[in-house]
Amino acid sequence: MANTKWVYDFGGGASDGDASMKNLLGGKGANLAEMASLGLPVPPGFTITTALCTAYYDLGRKYPEELDAQLETSLKTLEAKAGKEFGSATNPLLVSVRSGARASMPGMMDTVLNLGLNDTTAEGLAQLSGDRRFAYDSYRRFIQMYSNVVLNITHDVFEDILEDFKDLQGYELDTDMQAEDWQEVIVKYKAAVVTHNNGKPFPEDPKDQLWGAIGAVFGSWMNDRAIFYRKHNDIPASWGTAVNVQSMVFGNMGDTSATGVAFTRDPGTGENLFYGEYLINAQGEDVVAGIRTPAPISKARAAEMGSDDAPLEVTMPDVYKQLTDVADKLEKHYRDMQDIEFTVEEGKLYMLQTRNGKRTAQAALAMAVEMCKEGLITENEAVLRLEPAQLDQLLHPMIDQDAKAAATAEGRVFVKGLPASPGAAIGKIVFDSDEAADAAAKGEDVILIRIETSPEDIHGMHASKAIVTARGGMTSHAAVVARGMGRPCVCGAGSLRINKELGEVSVAGETLKRGDIVTVDGATGEVFKGRVAMIEPDLSGDFAHIMEWADKARTLSVRTNAETPADVEVAKNFGAEGIGLCRTEHMFFDADRIPVVRAMILASSEKGRKEALEKLLPMQRSDFEAIFRIMGDKPCNIRLLDPPLHEFMPHSDEEMADVAKGSGVSIEVLTHRASELHESNPMLGHRGCRLGVTYPEIYEMQARAIFEAAVNVAKETGVAPVPEVMIPLVATKAEVALMKARIVKMAEAVLPKSDIKIDYLVGTMIELPRAALRAADIAQEAEFFSFGTNDLTQTTLGISRDDAARFLGDYEKQGIYEKDPFVTLDIEGVGELVQMGTERGRSVKPDLKIGICGEHGGDPASIAFCHKLGMSYVSCSPYRVPVARLAAAHAALKA
Amino acid sequence: MANTKWVYDFGGGASDGDASMKNLLGGKGANLAEMASLGLPVPPGFTITTALCTAYYDLGRKYPEELDAQLETSLKTLEAKAGKEFGSATNPLLVSVRSGARASMPGMMDTVLNLGLNDTTAEGLAQLSGDRRFAYDSYRRFIQMYSNVVLNITHDVFEDILEDFKDLQGYELDTDMQAEDWQEVIVKYKAAVVTHNNGKPFPEDPKDQLWGAIGAVFGSWMNDRAIFYRKHNDIPASWGTAVNVQSMVFGNMGDTSATGVAFTRDPGTGENLFYGEYLINAQGEDVVAGIRTPAPISKARAAEMGSDDAPLEVTMPDVYKQLTDVADKLEKHYRDMQDIEFTVEEGKLYMLQTRNGKRTAQAALAMAVEMCKEGLITENEAVLRLEPAQLDQLLHPMIDQDAKAAATAEGRVFVKGLPASPGAAIGKIVFDSDEAADAAAKGEDVILIRIETSPEDIHGMHASKAIVTARGGMTSHAAVVARGMGRPCVCGAGSLRINKELGEVSVAGETLKRGDIVTVDGATGEVFKGRVAMIEPDLSGDFAHIMEWADKARTLSVRTNAETPADVEVAKNFGAEGIGLCRTEHMFFDADRIPVVRAMILASSEKGRKEALEKLLPMQRSDFEAIFRIMGDKPCNIRLLDPPLHEFMPHSDEEMADVAKGSGVSIEVLTHRASELHESNPMLGHRGCRLGVTYPEIYEMQARAIFEAAVNVAKETGVAPVPEVMIPLVATKAEVALMKARIVKMAEAVLPKSDIKIDYLVGTMIELPRAALRAADIAQEAEFFSFGTNDLTQTTLGISRDDAARFLGDYEKQGIYEKDPFVTLDIEGVGELVQMGTERGRSVKPDLKIGICGEHGGDPASIAFCHKLGMSYVSCSPYRVPVARLAAAHAALKA
Repeated sequence: MANTKWVYDFGGGASDGDASMKNLLGGKGANLAEMASLGLPVPPGFTITTALCTAYYDLGRKYPEELDAQLETSLKTLEAKAGKEFGSATNPLLVSVRSGARASMPGMMDTVLNLGLNDTTAEGLAQLSGDRRFAYDSYRRFIQMYSNVVLNITHDVFEDILEDFKDLQGYELDTDMQAEDWQEVIVKYKAAVVTHNNGKPFPEDPKDQLWGAIGAVFGSWMNDRAIFYRKHNDIPASWGTAVNVQSMVFGNMGDTSATGVAFTRDPGTGENLFYGEYLINAQGEDVVAGIRTPAPISKARAAEMGSDDAPLEVTMPDVYKQLTDVADKLEKHYRDMQDIEFTVEEGKLYMLQTRNGKRTAQAALAMAVEMCKEGLITENEAVLRLEPAQLDQLLHPMIDQDAKAAATAEGRVFVKGLPASPGAAIGKIVFDSDEAADAAAKGEDVILIRIETSPEDIHGMHASKAIVTARGGMTSHAAVVARGMGRPCVCGAGSLRINKELGEVSVAGETLKRGDIVTVDGATGEVFKGRVAMIEPDLSGDFAHIMEWADKARTLSVRTNAETPADVEVAKNFGAEGIGLCRTEHMFFDADRIPVVRAMILASSEKGRKEALEKLLPMQRSDFEAIFRIMGDKPCNIRLLDPPLHEFMPHSDEEMADVAKGSGVSIEVLTHRASELHESNPMLGHRGCRLGVTYPEIYEMQARAIFEAAVNVAKETGVAPVPEVMIPLVATKAEVALMKARIVKMAEAVLPKSDIKIDYLVGTMIELPRAALRAADIAQEAEFFSFGTNDLTQTTLGISRDDAARFLGDYEKQGIYEKDPFVTLDIEGVGELVQMGTERGRSVKPDLKIGICGEHGGDPASIAFCHKLGMSYVSCSPYRVPVARLAAAHAALKA
Repeated sequence: MANTKWVYDFGGGASDGDASMKNLLGGKGANLAEMASLGLPVPPGFTITTALCTAYYDLGRKYPEELDAQLETSLKTLEAKAGKEFGSATNPLLVSVRSGARASMPGMMDTVLNLGLNDTTAEGLAQLSGDRRFAYDSYRRFIQMYSNVVLNITHDVFEDILEDFKDLQGYELDTDMQAEDWQEVIVKYKAAVVTHNNGKPFPEDPKDQLWGAIGAVFGSWMNDRAIFYRKHNDIPASWGTAVNVQSMVFGNMGDTSATGVAFTRDPGTGENLFYGEYLINAQGEDVVAGIRTPAPISKARAAEMGSDDAPLEVTMPDVYKQLTDVADKLEKHYRDMQDIEFTVEEGKLYMLQTRNGKRTAQAALAMAVEMCKEGLITENEAVLRLEPAQLDQLLHPMIDQDAKAAATAEGRVFVKGLPASPGAAIGKIVFDSDEAADAAAKGEDVILIRIETSPEDIHGMHASKAIVTARGGMTSHAAVVARGMGRPCVCGAGSLRINKELGEVSVAGETLKRGDIVTVDGATGEVFKGRVAMIEPDLSGDFAHIMEWADKARTLSVRTNAETPADVEVAKNFGAEGIGLCRTEHMFFDADRIPVVRAMILASSEKGRKEALEKLLPMQRSDFEAIFRIMGDKPCNIRLLDPPLHEFMPHSDEEMADVAKGSGVSIEVLTHRASELHESNPMLGHRGCRLGVTYPEIYEMQARAIFEAAVNVAKETGVAPVPEVMIPLVATKAEVALMKARIVKMAEAVLPKSDIKIDYLVGTMIELPRAALRAADIAQEAEFFSFGTNDLTQTTLGISRDDAARFLGDYEKQGIYEKDPFVTLDIEGVGELVQMGTERGRSVKPDLKIGICGEHGGDPASIAFCHKLGMSYVSCSPYRVPVARLAAAHAALKA
């Protein structure tokens, strides 16, 4: 470690790093170095690496010894480049300290500006800038920000002091405050710090300030918000964050100064249009925080939005021209849409950040296709530009235009704000993030309405179907986070008056209450009272292009888990290449069937069971016929009955009575049978092929239904269906051998009735650890494997999914499992069994067809793992099929 | 396969095989060859190998082609040796066909005698023997036996014909039947065969008869009784059985002929005394079947038994002398006690079988020690002579002699029979094996009383605590099987009158009913009415010798699973070298503690929980003090709380009300909390270290109690206890790290209070598949592993032990699991995870202490596996400790 370089300089000529070093320098640090090397105007600074963050935590929140010396050196270099001196009374260097992880984590990490100010340097700054008010305003901002971020003193403390002071002076606005006023406030601020910081004064030494800020950045990597964000964005804690220390430039030095944020293309729609917002005489945080609503940058955009604020293009035409040139240069250089931050200090443009811009799925899609057509990127790159997880947004319903027109005509538009994140949603109004999370946990659809959002609202935003705010622009916290999450969002709907206590929101006298239904259209910024009909999304155009390119790139086949004809149809339209899991028990629950199923269960003899099964046979057969008809010559994997029989029994006393009446069986017999069937741990009980072992007639009926359906559909359509009969919950070769023999016997009895040859396979779920371990044995009998990773996760981790809620939250919070193992495959644990099962199965049958049909089959990270193992296919729910196709392409292209 | 030798000749000079070829020739075949080579009088014959049995099943119950030619050749050789011809009308060769597996399976396999008889050869035999009655009696016996064994026609069919015939003739006994009578009966027998064999006649061709009998032997390998016996004796189905075809000798050719069975030492007590029974003018089956009660062989034994029957030593002194010489020779040759079968044909002795004799545990122990002292075998061989599973019998109570004297004085002796298998038992009378099995399944202790037993009774005998029969001698089916199972047995209690229908048994007018309690003393042959007190067995003498030799031989350490001081004491006396699993939750259930435990669970805050835990602390501490005091400097592995909290909650409404009253909490709150705690699959729920993650204060209290107890006991005794703190249900390294940090903190707070240094370890159960897979990670934190193979079996196989009863029976019956995986480790599946966990754990810490604490820790086969893996110790219930010590020695000696 002694020779490790922990600090990298950038700007002012030489830069140690470049854009390729994102893992080490974080996104911001790497791009600052890269921009500086491109000759763009970047204030000089240095980056403390992400490796240091990791070392810091490995050492128990301590720094490696050699950091001190390296930091000193870089600070000297920075002073030389800036021509200023840190802590100087006459020519003070001020710096910003910002976090910068590998992946952008907006709003998650804390920032300190104006660091280096104290009573001496503030006076120096006042002299140097000739603007005392600016200098002391900056100083008090610094104390406030530093105290909040580093010393954990809430903003309220300082805001109260300021408000009291203004009241006393009879001031209305901050702009009424003069330099001397700020100086007085600063004295009060410092006194408050002593009170709230265990008697310790605000650090006067700029070096102490710097170390404090660095420590706060690293510390914030492990705060709850950061952990939550990482969890929902699949970012491992081990990546760490870098710290960027950069000499300050000031957007708040009067009307020739400004600060802003821009995107090289529209991040909401993907349109190739320079797009951004700015504030004159402001510091960067003001734009992002949404405290003042910023103005558009370009005339075109201002016109489009009907904004009255003067765009940058008008207020500072030269800077605007320079900025668009920089933007062009950056987009061509990075070959992707850029999200840039800039500051104008007394007419001079500085670039503070560039990064690949976050975008909605719709924008990602449009940009990828357009850039590909422009020749900027290849088809494969275009495919990689669309995150599979994001794609989900495009696959869900949007607002029906006719219904919307009608709703508008009916006067049901409640409010209109900024179209901050597209998509539409219907739900009940809530005003609080905890309330949103609680309601969502109960399965309710909610719309979160807030004045503005902050990082504390992340869980509430996640729980909501859409977010509406009264304040903040297109780059406000709410907008950025909502786009990242794929939630529709309407921002800056300024006419909203929210009274959280009363549970009311009103616009111009019209009031809605907590729990009222609204429909949000994130694509237009409108919020409607009541429900507005939605329609299926358009899957042609750009979507079809990307999917076509993805299909060319991928090697994994994609199937679907579906059993109803409606679902099978949807999945087929989404590109499913077969059925990976048809759960036959779902068909048993239909109202007209459950009595027959119960009659079977209540039968006291094999004969009685067979009579009931005789009645079920034509029903199951017609189910399978419908599926075969839709799927044609595509393989259909049908799993034989899996759940324990008690799942089909009535539960409440009332139901019991109904069933007793309907079935002619006494309540006593019914209750007795139900208690006989009761299990302590049904998940590990009498289910799956264990039913087939003890009640062979059930599986025989199902096999017969499958094969008879295949024969019928072959006759009817001239196309031979491809049934794959799957035996669940296998742990031994013997079980497969036993079940398979019966299935094959049934096939041999039925299939010869078809003129067209019908090929079928008999295979097994691999969903118990023992099955994975004994895969070589089992493959001697099984003709395919399908990894049932839901149950495999339950048994390997010893966690019942139904009961996990009680502790899995604590587990994720404490980092015991980085991701929910039921969403993303636990590759280290369950994954090893999947790998073992795959390798051992193929050691016996090199061409063994292997798929996955757990929830993980629709999860991009898990799909990548399946690809790596050389699986034949993944299978997922119908709406996830395009996600899986894209994820499979990503896996192939990244391999 | 074409060159495989399937048939091995023996006797009459040359033998192809010898005793070392037991695996191929079966025990009987190998020993017949060996005896012939030793120059003993063995009727010649040949053996069809066990390999053929396996080939037969592999080929789908078909023989390899080349068998036919090999059999022909051997038959020719046999004819030459015997000087007779198979199927000859004048000098017919008759043969016996018997099964002979690697391991002796008494009563399990079928035998056919007198094969080769038909109308022609029977007449030939009549001429040759000059005894028409003998010839036709033999013929009808053959038809009856062959029809039963090969053609599956019940004995009843033939017995009815015979009874009808005798009635018609006015005969009382079989001995009234003359040759002509038998001839008439034979005609009727053959007609009955046609009726009951689908119209097919009895085979006349001796070759057809031979093939039929061979097929029946191989077929019987897979009958239910054989499968059941194998299961309970750990014999794999793959071993197969051999078939022995041997020329007949006749013990039923008049009063100079006889047949008998003998043991070279007493198989019940181990006494070095020649011991056996015989019948004059009888065939071998008559002795074993228990139809006639045989006479003792020796004068000494006859005197001891007070038998009035003349012993062989008196009736045939020369034969007796020759027989004892043979017995001596065989025991010295085989260096073990022999179980021999012999026949005397017209004064000439023939040896039909020798094998190592089955014996009671007591006899095995006595013989092993005595033979070692005689210099016949070494200490290690002596150790190997005692089967660990058998040892169990010696560790359980026997009848108290004083109580017995009192019971006798009170006239409570119900009946006295033969002391066929030692040990004592108390239970309720049953008269039927199914009834016995049903009652045992309900946890009742039953005594099976039968006229005689047959292979159909095996399951009933297994389910009973003791067996009593009215008929049959010391080598009857009941006696042999009971000794093998370690069940006390009283045989041949001839005065018993059993009326199964009425559910009564009486002796001389005194009647007991089904369900009445009796006490059986298998060591004396007495059955007492009611209960007679029992005492602990003597663990000194021979037992102590063998254990001392075993301890020298073994490398595995043996600990115990115990938590009460009484159990810990018993285990220590049985030689436990530490505690492998102290289940702290058992201590929570005490009547004075459960209210406090419930108060903790019902507490709504951490504060409330801590208050309750404060009360539990001194209780737990005193538990641990007691254990440390007994165990001294031996390691004590203490598992922190494992079960889900709902296990401690009241269940019935009544209990609820009681608890509500006692705790001052309303029923509503109580019910709500109970339903909150309810889990779908508690086995996979909120338990083990998951409790420690969500309620750290529980584990902290337990750790504190452990360390404080250690400090107190160290002070009190001057000996430092060796606590090993075990974290249950771990799946990740993070869990161990989290828990360990808290435990270590507690240790650091408490242990310095001791003057004597107290060493402790913090380690983990490995009981989830993921823990085994990630053992290398986990070993970075854990200081020991203990494989919890109960839960590991549940999760790996996906079988809840509580629910398995519903299907595991079917599973074993169908051979899906050869043994109950909760009794003997599933080495192929669960075993691989254990091996993986061991290897991966040791890859990080080569000296990692590794043990096993599931039920398997007391199972000999599983212990052998643990030895092979190089584990540090096994841990089992107190009474299994000597079994484990012996099994560990076996494992080491066999390695």
